[in-house]
Amino acid sequence: MTTPAAPLRVALLGGGTVGGSVTRMLLEQADDLEQRIGRRLEIVGIAVRRAGRDRSDLGVDPSLFTTDAQELVTRADIVVELIGGIEPARGLILRAMEHGASVVTANKALLAEDGASLHTAAAEHGVDLYYEASVAGAIPILRPIRDSLAGDSINRVIGIVNGTTNFVLDAMDTTGAGLFETVERAQALGYAEADPTADVEGFDAAAKAAILSSLAFHSRVSTEDVHREGITGVGARDIQAAQDMGCTVKLLAICEKVATADGTGISARVHPAMIPLTHPLASVREAYNAVFVEAEGAGDLMFYGQGAGGDPTASAVLGDLVAVARTRVTGGRGPGASSYANLPVLSMGQAVTRYHVSLDVEDRSGVLAAVATKFSEHDVSIETVRQQVVTDDDGAPRATLIIVTHAATDAALSATVDELAQLDAVNEVTSVMRVEGS
Amino acid sequence: MTTPAAPLRVALLGGGTVGGSVTRMLLEQADDLEQRIGRRLEIVGIAVRRAGRDRSDLGVDPSLFTTDAQELVTRADIVVELIGGIEPARGLILRAMEHGASVVTANKALLAEDGASLHTAAAEHGVDLYYEASVAGAIPILRPIRDSLAGDSINRVIGIVNGTTNFVLDAMDTTGAGLFETVERAQALGYAEADPTADVEGFDAAAKAAILSSLAFHSRVSTEDVHREGITGVGARDIQAAQDMGCTVKLLAICEKVATADGTGISARVHPAMIPLTHPLASVREAYNAVFVEAEGAGDLMFYGQGAGGDPTASAVLGDLVAVARTRVTGGRGPGASSYANLPVLSMGQAVTRYHVSLDVEDRSGVLAAVATKFSEHDVSIETVRQQVVTDDDGAPRATLIIVTHAATDAALSATVDELAQLDAVNEVTSVMRVEGS
Repeated sequence: MTTPAAPLRVALLGGGTVGGSVTRMLLEQADDLEQRIGRRLEIVGIAVRRAGRDRSDLGVDPSLFTTDAQELVTRADIVVELIGGIEPARGLILRAMEHGASVVTANKALLAEDGASLHTAAAEHGVDLYYEASVAGAIPILRPIRDSLAGDSINRVIGIVNGTTNFVLDAMDTTGAGLFETVERAQALGYAEADPTADVEGFDAAAKAAILSSLAFHSRVSTEDVHREGITGVGARDIQAAQDMGCTVKLLAICEKVATADGTGISARVHPAMIPLTHPLASVREAYNAVFVEAEGAGDLMFYGQGAGGDPTASAVLGDLVAVARTRVTGGRGPGASSYANLPVLSMGQAVTRYHVSLDVEDRSGVLAAVATKFSEHDVSIETVRQQVVTDDDGAPRATLIIVTHAATDAALSATVDELAQLDAVNEVTSVMRVEGS
Repeated sequence: MTTPAAPLRVALLGGGTVGGSVTRMLLEQADDLEQRIGRRLEIVGIAVRRAGRDRSDLGVDPSLFTTDAQELVTRADIVVELIGGIEPARGLILRAMEHGASVVTANKALLAEDGASLHTAAAEHGVDLYYEASVAGAIPILRPIRDSLAGDSINRVIGIVNGTTNFVLDAMDTTGAGLFETVERAQALGYAEADPTADVEGFDAAAKAAILSSLAFHSRVSTEDVHREGITGVGARDIQAAQDMGCTVKLLAICEKVATADGTGISARVHPAMIPLTHPLASVREAYNAVFVEAEGAGDLMFYGQGAGGDPTASAVLGDLVAVARTRVTGGRGPGASSYANLPVLSMGQAVTRYHVSLDVEDRSGVLAAVATKFSEHDVSIETVRQQVVTDDDGAPRATLIIVTHAATDAALSATVDELAQLDAVNEVTSVMRVEGS
């Protein structure tokens, strides 16, 4: 036996829920991790915002806590950033890299906004940057896309990457309740934040769509490139309309390659959509996440698990930490970002999708012809039409037209719907939703 | 720009379906792969069994085909072994490593029988050994277990890792048909081999269980350690019994840590089992594969996709090829095998499981007491009992007892069933099946 090498110095930034789980798992599994890495990990400091809070439950030496993150990152081999947000996280990560540290982060907002400059800095300083925990919590998805599918060509990634909205939509589907009462229930159960905007409006999912698109298509996609619609427009009658179609409504992060007249581009978007119950994503219930990947060679793959929570997120962080530590021990570098394909990001109007449209129309002849004409004027082909006549509360007959289109550009589809709403024969557009996954 | 480095030399062993897909994808994606790796890949030879077969469809220089695999492996940086079986595959892999080549293989039989000596040789010669394609085809599962979950502690892996048997069981579930006619149908549709033994008897799944157990538990588990029962004992009435329970029957590869009086051991086994329809594995239909992983931090994860086929398997092979090529370019070594935990493999009798037992019994008092006594004599606790009285074809009443146990050792459970069959009041044990995933 040779003398053991000095431990690898690990600095943690952030003492919140995930930081607590990471610390605990690092301590509990110290011997196992040493065996797997070939070197011991030593926590050299935990940067917290305020000193003095009692953290004796973590079982670490109290002297490890510091409020001086700027100093801490200069004396570590690996920095684990769990602060979140853009600053001071970005500055600390760059400073850590300048001082030769590899970085593991769960920071989706930062990666999605400015991943390029972080990757550039990592390459410049010859260090690793890993961020598995930034998308879909515990689910290994970035490494499979980056490594396992590195020899394949990915066509599309469709993710349920926000647990809060999936919980809400699933509960609406089960109970028939409306959106706002369901969000309140989710808040009471701890599945939604007091301010649910980031989840409900799709900001969280959009950041993840940017990260997934960048990796899947070897291009640079940032949050602002991602078309974003949240679930606030989804009502009980949309859910009912989906059920009538043998579908369910999910908030999807969709990243796909689209062939246009000008060449291949990327459509990156977050919006609610109907998916058939037969699609594997339809069975993702409650707050679970899943990412469905369609690749040229591999065909359809799905990755399923918990998308949030202290321990699940910590599991992803620690997987990265072990990978980064291994390259410290064996030499070399982990795979960096690749953006060689440099595909342009398309506008939402250029995305190709399908629409489900429910119309409340006059019950008289010629209505269907007028409606169908609007679709054909925009070159949108109709897949199915269903007409229902029901009696309303006043005893008057009301007709409903339910139309599902073939694939067309979103620009053509939305223009069609705008004009349908103007038709005299159309009383109301009762539900419009994209249809995916068929 | 510096002068480009010499291409990495890739030798392919095996010119079958997967080899063809690998060759085609290597050629079609040559430019992409060069960007992702940082170096061009060059096929320096394809070893085939017989010369002269027309392979012009692959679009490679005919002079690349050789029947001299022994020579070919000495002049490559990376050898891709797709021959299968133990020899000559093992000899060629060892020879390749001796000559400094890293190896990518899809060979589950060899890995499961003798992975240890391959890993030892790889470490000795400082080369990489990757084998993602050996388990569950296109599904990234070995890399997630080895890398993504490297900072976590895996408690259990339950896999549907054989597409043929899943197709057969799913078809039986849907049609109510018996086993043998369903296997014939699967053969006609190309989902089962002319000789289906390796699939139907669980040999294929057992090899995969050995590989999964070794990686998940950092121990050495080989095929002979895996308890194996195929699906030949599964009849239409077992399927019906499962449906009556809100379950479906799957052939499962189960790898779990079990606490015994002597410490922690590994239970590695392949057998049919009932799983509840609410379990994510229950919705894995047709010939699809899926692997469900239960980890301490990550919680429940599932990986789903195609388990076989030329292109899906080639996708996994190429992912490994890119990884191995990257370490050639950046230096260092990929993570090797780790068997530090060295956990013992338990016998099937020590496995802890639950049984579903259907008994055809006399319709008289005292029968339930006699049956219940047998369970209690073996310390097996009963979770539910259901008694049904039906009239048989002759108009006589027949009673059925359906019992589901709590968890107990397989030894106690199987001894109980053996003795139940001897009871006077028991006409027949009509169905016995383990229950998993609850």
